[in-house]
Amino acid sequence: MTEIDVKRKVLEANASAARSLKETFGASGTLVVNLISSPGSGKTTLLEATARALKDRFRLGGLDGDIATERDAERLQRAGIPARQILTGGACHLDARQVEKALAEEGSRLAGLDALFIENVGNLICPTSYDLGEAFKVVLLSVVEGDDKPFKYPAIFSRAAFTVVTKCDLLPHVDFDLSAVREQVAALNPSAGFLVVSARSGEGMDAWYSLLEEKIAWKREAPAAALVAP
Amino acid sequence: MTEIDVKRKVLEANASAARSLKETFGASGTLVVNLISSPGSGKTTLLEATARALKDRFRLGGLDGDIATERDAERLQRAGIPARQILTGGACHLDARQVEKALAEEGSRLAGLDALFIENVGNLICPTSYDLGEAFKVVLLSVVEGDDKPFKYPAIFSRAAFTVVTKCDLLPHVDFDLSAVREQVAALNPSAGFLVVSARSGEGMDAWYSLLEEKIAWKREAPAAALVAP
Repeated sequence: MTEIDVKRKVLEANASAARSLKETFGASGTLVVNLISSPGSGKTTLLEATARALKDRFRLGGLDGDIATERDAERLQRAGIPARQILTGGACHLDARQVEKALAEEGSRLAGLDALFIENVGNLICPTSYDLGEAFKVVLLSVVEGDDKPFKYPAIFSRAAFTVVTKCDLLPHVDFDLSAVREQVAALNPSAGFLVVSARSGEGMDAWYSLLEEKIAWKREAPAAALVAP
Repeated sequence: MTEIDVKRKVLEANASAARSLKETFGASGTLVVNLISSPGSGKTTLLEATARALKDRFRLGGLDGDIATERDAERLQRAGIPARQILTGGACHLDARQVEKALAEEGSRLAGLDALFIENVGNLICPTSYDLGEAFKVVLLSVVEGDDKPFKYPAIFSRAAFTVVTKCDLLPHVDFDLSAVREQVAALNPSAGFLVVSARSGEGMDAWYSLLEEKIAWKREAPAAALVAP
């Protein structure tokens, strides 16, 4: 078996587990969001703010992928929602079987949620190919990472339904051409949504919350069968 | 062949190419530095400043690994040193055979340098396991990425001879506990060097340049054989 055969087999096994997860999330009407970014772009901080803003109206939960430490799940728990850390054993991404196993072990604590946020391992490359049964992927890019990133990492910016530019409170202190980023994303994925936020200052956060509310409502109302289809 | 067998075979092939590169760099007395960080931590910006500061005294060159775009090599060329982009074909790291091939194709343009900077693909995980024939690895961490990163990505912070904290001009605008980072790095790698810089403001850059000058001198004077040893 060659390296390519092994990779194909791994992705096939992942796709099978992802289909099974989609059926589960379809049956429970759970909106699942797969968040992907570089390390330190602000995934956990965005989710902490989201938990605090929406936890009284929706049943929310989190899965946090990392190479090491349980810090991120602890942060979400402190923000008031159930969360579980998945340590990947050195792998640079989560896979659908890890998600299945974590949910099975958590039982009712993470079942039947309105929304489950999966915070992937900090990495703009590896997580891109692994479907975790999510409704859609969100890619985060902080304004400090530079405005050349969508064209440097085209796969994730093509596949994410939403690009969220984070830490916009730092825009006055960095060279970051927001319109250049918007144009690159539009070129890679004309239907992608584009948000600019700062979890620290609160700027743009209402648009993010509205988006989640709309998608949670859509997921509840959509027939489960439609969400299992490819 | 299992997934683990394939990974072992890939790493063995890499190690063989890395040994050959070390012989070449030993014979020419070239200091090779493998720079690793998240996307947007400032590898290219650090190298642009380094090129401008040291190019009149040393023969410098760069190899820039990316998934897509030739932007980084172009930036180093504009800063006045020869540089070549290596597109990895989707891989999340450079490997030693790609470095061999690029150097062979460049011929004298990147041969016999005093120092060759290899800017790896933006990723804190995958590049860690691949020896590129370098004298040492440098890991960069920008102050905007958060002070929890060494313990979240322990492999690279354990293996890098130097941790360079970048964008320290932004410290007044972010929550970043520099001493916590220093302690994590010291716990993972007690012999690691630790620098704090801003290529933008110039703060700390003289220490970085002095370090490179010292290592270039060391590489020139060290017997080639000593540098081939494991």
